Amino acid sequence: MPQGRPTAVPADGLTTRQRRNRPLTLLHTGEMKGKSTAAFGLALRGWNQGWSIGVFQFVKSAKWKVGEETAFRALGRLHEQTGEGGPVEWHKMGEGWSWSRKQGTEEDHAAAAREGWAEIARRLRAERHGLYVLDEFTYPLHWGWVDVAEVVAALRDRPGHQHVVITGRHAPRALVDAADLVVEMTKVKHPMDAGQKGQKGIEW
Amino acid sequence: MPQGRPTAVPADGLTTRQRRNRPLTLLHTGEMKGKSTAAFGLALRGWNQGWSIGVFQFVKSAKWKVGEETAFRALGRLHEQTGEGGPVEWHKMGEGWSWSRKQGTEEDHAAAAREGWAEIARRLRAERHGLYVLDEFTYPLHWGWVDVAEVVAALRDRPGHQHVVITGRHAPRALVDAADLVVEMTKVKHPMDAGQKGQKGIEW
Repeated sequence: MPQGRPTAVPADGLTTRQRRNRPLTLLHTGEMKGKSTAAFGLALRGWNQGWSIGVFQFVKSAKWKVGEETAFRALGRLHEQTGEGGPVEWHKMGEGWSWSRKQGTEEDHAAAAREGWAEIARRLRAERHGLYVLDEFTYPLHWGWVDVAEVVAALRDRPGHQHVVITGRHAPRALVDAADLVVEMTKVKHPMDAGQKGQKGIEW
Repeated sequence: MPQGRPTAVPADGLTTRQRRNRPLTLLHTGEMKGKSTAAFGLALRGWNQGWSIGVFQFVKSAKWKVGEETAFRALGRLHEQTGEGGPVEWHKMGEGWSWSRKQGTEEDHAAAAREGWAEIARRLRAERHGLYVLDEFTYPLHWGWVDVAEVVAALRDRPGHQHVVITGRHAPRALVDAADLVVEMTKVKHPMDAGQKGQKGIEW
């Protein structure tokens, strides 16, 4: 539900419209379910606006395929065929670009994450997408594989009107500070507490 | 990310597989963004499993259309045309069934909410959908328009394997108790704090 009442109006010299239309950096963090699903729900809104959607999944195995991927690839094909919505690109660690395909050492994974980020940074400079989903990108940041200060600078300096949503636990402080919106998914209750394991359609 | 280690194994006489495959009641609550988007992200996973997806939006005006609706209607058409994914039904207060179309009194809205819930209860008994999204259903419960005990009983007694996800603030205690999974979306930072209003593609 859109909510129309800002809690403060800053003396930044911008009109409400200018301020309204600034691109956002959104961060979904916390221990609980909902970080990635909320990012993909948001991407549905962007797709409907006709934005180019770029999804970049970190950490996940190239073999691992979530239901969202199939659905978004279908929406991307629909755009190609009918012009409805926007185009969709979906990239995973372990496939595409220059991601390492082999089960490698930690240094291999770190290098692959850095190459992945370098590609995203190139796309940001080129204004390639309207919305970027950097799924589970907090982990390579948390592990020190990708430099947080470099990411914050690239987000701050990105041209045009590109929204970026980043998901994952252990978000570094500098990323929280740089984000416009930060949601923490917190646990009230989880089926795991009652001995129930994850199941298809719910967890993937 | 699926996580395979339950924190406790109950003495309920079920095998891990039986316990794993029990239908879930999920509740997305809290003050922050992400409740509905995470429900629709989850629905993408269900769609990909070929489940029948039933979305029931409470409170929203019939004129109000979120990007998710367009995207899911497109996915539903895709299913009809190609068999990919599952069928999708999307119902809003103010249109369809017997929802009141006019700007009415509070009692009209309460009656419309009760009729909406009655339809959902019928569908649960008939095992109509694999996943129900009851979007912003906590409000008619919170306002006393729909009886919480009746909802809890209908959820508890539903046959077959039907998942239900409910979103909204002010979730009644009895609903929290009845749910298998409860996530609270909590605010760390919101653009509204910096005087920025909602924008298309992000809020709707």
